[in-house]
Amino acid sequence: MARQYHVTGLGSAIVDVLAATDDAFLLTHNVAKGVMTLIDEYRAEQLYGAFGNTREIAGGSAANTMAGLASLGAKGNFAGKVKEDRLGHAFVASMRELGLNYTTAPADSGPQTACCLIAVTPDGQRSMNTYLGAAREFAITDLNEADIAGSDIIYIEGYLWDAPTAKAASLKAIDIAKHAGTKVAFTLSDPFLMGRYRNEFLDLLPQLDILFANEDEAMALFEVEAFDDVLHAFKPMNKIAAITRSEKGCVIARGAEVHVIEAAPVARVIDTTGAGDQFAAGFMYGLTHNRGLADCGRLGALAAAEVISHYGARPEVSLKDLAAKAKLI
Amino acid sequence: MARQYHVTGLGSAIVDVLAATDDAFLLTHNVAKGVMTLIDEYRAEQLYGAFGNTREIAGGSAANTMAGLASLGAKGNFAGKVKEDRLGHAFVASMRELGLNYTTAPADSGPQTACCLIAVTPDGQRSMNTYLGAAREFAITDLNEADIAGSDIIYIEGYLWDAPTAKAASLKAIDIAKHAGTKVAFTLSDPFLMGRYRNEFLDLLPQLDILFANEDEAMALFEVEAFDDVLHAFKPMNKIAAITRSEKGCVIARGAEVHVIEAAPVARVIDTTGAGDQFAAGFMYGLTHNRGLADCGRLGALAAAEVISHYGARPEVSLKDLAAKAKLI
Repeated sequence: MARQYHVTGLGSAIVDVLAATDDAFLLTHNVAKGVMTLIDEYRAEQLYGAFGNTREIAGGSAANTMAGLASLGAKGNFAGKVKEDRLGHAFVASMRELGLNYTTAPADSGPQTACCLIAVTPDGQRSMNTYLGAAREFAITDLNEADIAGSDIIYIEGYLWDAPTAKAASLKAIDIAKHAGTKVAFTLSDPFLMGRYRNEFLDLLPQLDILFANEDEAMALFEVEAFDDVLHAFKPMNKIAAITRSEKGCVIARGAEVHVIEAAPVARVIDTTGAGDQFAAGFMYGLTHNRGLADCGRLGALAAAEVISHYGARPEVSLKDLAAKAKLI
Repeated sequence: MARQYHVTGLGSAIVDVLAATDDAFLLTHNVAKGVMTLIDEYRAEQLYGAFGNTREIAGGSAANTMAGLASLGAKGNFAGKVKEDRLGHAFVASMRELGLNYTTAPADSGPQTACCLIAVTPDGQRSMNTYLGAAREFAITDLNEADIAGSDIIYIEGYLWDAPTAKAASLKAIDIAKHAGTKVAFTLSDPFLMGRYRNEFLDLLPQLDILFANEDEAMALFEVEAFDDVLHAFKPMNKIAAITRSEKGCVIARGAEVHVIEAAPVARVIDTTGAGDQFAAGFMYGLTHNRGLADCGRLGALAAAEVISHYGARPEVSLKDLAAKAKLI
């Protein structure tokens, strides 16, 4: 494959706002510990005001994946909505610094740029409060047909189904991709999404070329209790399924081709945030560079291992160098 | 399948002789801690004399598997050589108590019944010293053709390759099985065997219907460094491969049919001795009772989980009851 971009990612453009707090803060401000909660603008301002010193890092699931692809040396394009405000500028700057193309026009009115207010307690737990804001407003009019047609793969995060206009844009993007011969990759994002969109995701499967999921998400999608049954549900579809299984590694399948790949070694797991995002980055790097499925899985495992060895959802060292050392590129 | 026996097992007829010792004993008597060492008769008598109080339990890899099959309610037959001596009588009695058919004539001269002298130290480690004795003498003349032809499966342990006459008998048994339409199952037994018999085992593969191995053994057989490469070496052979992976569960493959099965839950792992033996028992129970390969793997995982939850290599509770509770039979 040799188009303008290896991957175009579609996702929520979110800035992570981290603050060190203690458990008392969580109790006082009614923050649920260790999980992700969607919040509204009022609550976001209230929490942000209470946070004190903060550190801001561009985030968002598909955006993190694009950061991983950039770290591997792939040519990437991102589409997602921010507002013309301070956090929006920070998000745009972060993507461009990584060498990614990012040209979605920011909103000049409406809700603020999305943020994920993360209270990090001394035990290393992250309590996330996501205000989707402007990210929800990504719409069909934001799509750049030439960018999609000029990509080997478009990669869409399931989280977008929580925003009707972003979902409509995603479906349109898939339509454009199908006509252009661009491969369509989709991540199930979160097991809780199956509760809300299970049937829609099942209906979407025939449109996809590559499905990313962790085993909990995949079992929820097919409503099965054994991992093996996921593989057998997929088999007749003849799609690429890349299913991550934490320390058990991953299984990659396409019809009768099945690969069982080890997790890459990690000296110490610090923070699993972003493991799935970086797995997808490594995997799609392999796929767009003509690697076999087993090596795609190994590249995914390598990228995931890097990101869980430190705090934060984006790589801290060059994934390209790591992959070269591991003789994977 | 509905022959006289579900499985005929061919293996070393060994009695385990256990003694509680301390580390000082291991040092004084030059016993290598935590591994299996082959010893001669002189050394066996010397060690046995030093052991003091001992507990004797019938053992042997394939014999343990037959015990598991009996616990599941299968009809089993065992072939392996003891001597007409005290340990020989104990071994025969233990097999008959389990309801297994066992009619190999004991030797009335030559080396004593095989024993595995196991020093159990307070840290739970087992230091094994195996004297193969009469078990090495199993020969073609000991084979009962009608029993082999009357079995759905014959199951042969790779350990037998360490004894030339027992190896010759195994090859003859395979020949009889092929002519009778009896399926042939083989276990690689121990990664160290690949060092000695790798090419012979590779030559044997076309004769087999089912290969049992753990991942270390399978990777050693094919001289590959990644588990996934084992699967791809097997695939074109279109045999059943049942590869165990400790806490990562097992992978069962037959051509393009691949199943990835979880390990069964264990509250606390006490002693992993016999895990592979019992896995083979559960798997072959499934196979001879018309279960799909995934359920065969689950039955294997269930039997392995039981045996690692206590000391000793044979089940302590009815595997049939356990399997019924797990709705696997």
